[in-house]
Amino acid sequence: MNLLLLEKKDFIGPGKALVFGRRFEHIKKVLKAKNGTNLSCGLIDGKMGKARITSFYTDSLELEVNLNLDTPKPLPLTLVLALPRPKMLKRIMESVTSLGVKEIYLVNSWRVEKSFWQSPVLEMESLEKYFRLGLEQGKDTIMPQIYQKRFFSKFVKEELPIIGKDSLCILAHPKTSNICPNSVNRKTTLVIGPEGGFIEFEIKALEEAGFETFSIGERILKVETATTYLISRLFT
Amino acid sequence: MNLLLLEKKDFIGPGKALVFGRRFEHIKKVLKAKNGTNLSCGLIDGKMGKARITSFYTDSLELEVNLNLDTPKPLPLTLVLALPRPKMLKRIMESVTSLGVKEIYLVNSWRVEKSFWQSPVLEMESLEKYFRLGLEQGKDTIMPQIYQKRFFSKFVKEELPIIGKDSLCILAHPKTSNICPNSVNRKTTLVIGPEGGFIEFEIKALEEAGFETFSIGERILKVETATTYLISRLFT
Repeated sequence: MNLLLLEKKDFIGPGKALVFGRRFEHIKKVLKAKNGTNLSCGLIDGKMGKARITSFYTDSLELEVNLNLDTPKPLPLTLVLALPRPKMLKRIMESVTSLGVKEIYLVNSWRVEKSFWQSPVLEMESLEKYFRLGLEQGKDTIMPQIYQKRFFSKFVKEELPIIGKDSLCILAHPKTSNICPNSVNRKTTLVIGPEGGFIEFEIKALEEAGFETFSIGERILKVETATTYLISRLFT
Repeated sequence: MNLLLLEKKDFIGPGKALVFGRRFEHIKKVLKAKNGTNLSCGLIDGKMGKARITSFYTDSLELEVNLNLDTPKPLPLTLVLALPRPKMLKRIMESVTSLGVKEIYLVNSWRVEKSFWQSPVLEMESLEKYFRLGLEQGKDTIMPQIYQKRFFSKFVKEELPIIGKDSLCILAHPKTSNICPNSVNRKTTLVIGPEGGFIEFEIKALEEAGFETFSIGERILKVETATTYLISRLFT
């Protein structure tokens, strides 16, 4: 936890917050903070600043909060991800949030196992948990927006061209010798397939929606590694 | 499995191999291969090529193997990593292997929990399992070399200056405004600290060993994300 993430309901008065549960335990046991310790903090979807611990109780702590700093710049990226295995999804949601991704689409694909869509990880409350961990890690307060699209063809045909408008449209696909550009630093829509890749029909549909296929060379990466790798490559 | 990794002992004659166990199950159930199917393959620490399935038995399969291709270029990188939590170590070993890392040092540090050094994951047989998964993923055959160094000061003072000689010596450290260079594409030694970072004493020792501190900006990443992020950033 590099930033203590506060919610509006944590505030018990102007510039005064009360924190308990997971955050309290972490501040006490991992950060080993004491009365008077200053912590980086931020209000969800709001400003960042400092919080000073003014009272340490057995199961909660009181903070004097001063929010006067802007959040770091979001990445100008829309990430379109074939729904990964739930365990990997958790880690990807946390890591891309820590990297500054603010717009995520989870889409179906031929090689996505149907059972993945039944996972409780996909419930909004659960996804938000991983977003919070990512924000606490990356020192940010702005929650990503996430959308779940179970109909690949409809999504790619009707929605994706609008989403990708005026952006660089990149489809990560190992089976091309076209090497992904680096340091593009502009509005980008990045599509990443499932383990095993998109099938030919899907590649064609994505190309028709304006996406160009790129690989990272001879090596093939797991979705999780590829996602961080490509984000690092595109934005410097 | 994008490449079937063979060992010398799998060969039952010239250009003829027999595969069973995990690899057999994967080829049968995940790749859904049949008699006559061609697979990418490679010999550990040797050449890569094609394998054609010539016989499919109930618990094994026979292959006609033709190894005539070179492995992809290794990354000119030595990775020095404060020993991560065992679960994360597994994933990092697999992902950095898939990215082409060939030299890894696991070192102690103040914030490395002592119990991590007792983990069975650190046994060579276990580490090799994750290297194999990484090679199968990234389509490569050359096993990484790994070294475990439990004495930080001794290692940094006596060995690290020799390891880092003639290479770009980078210490990833969030608390600097010095931004990590990108696309250096030359011999590099990259040191990454534990969750929570190196302590001041360690930073100083590493600087004295010739390392310069760099961050990736305002955001702080988990060790796992940072490792892939930095490798992508340094080599394009």
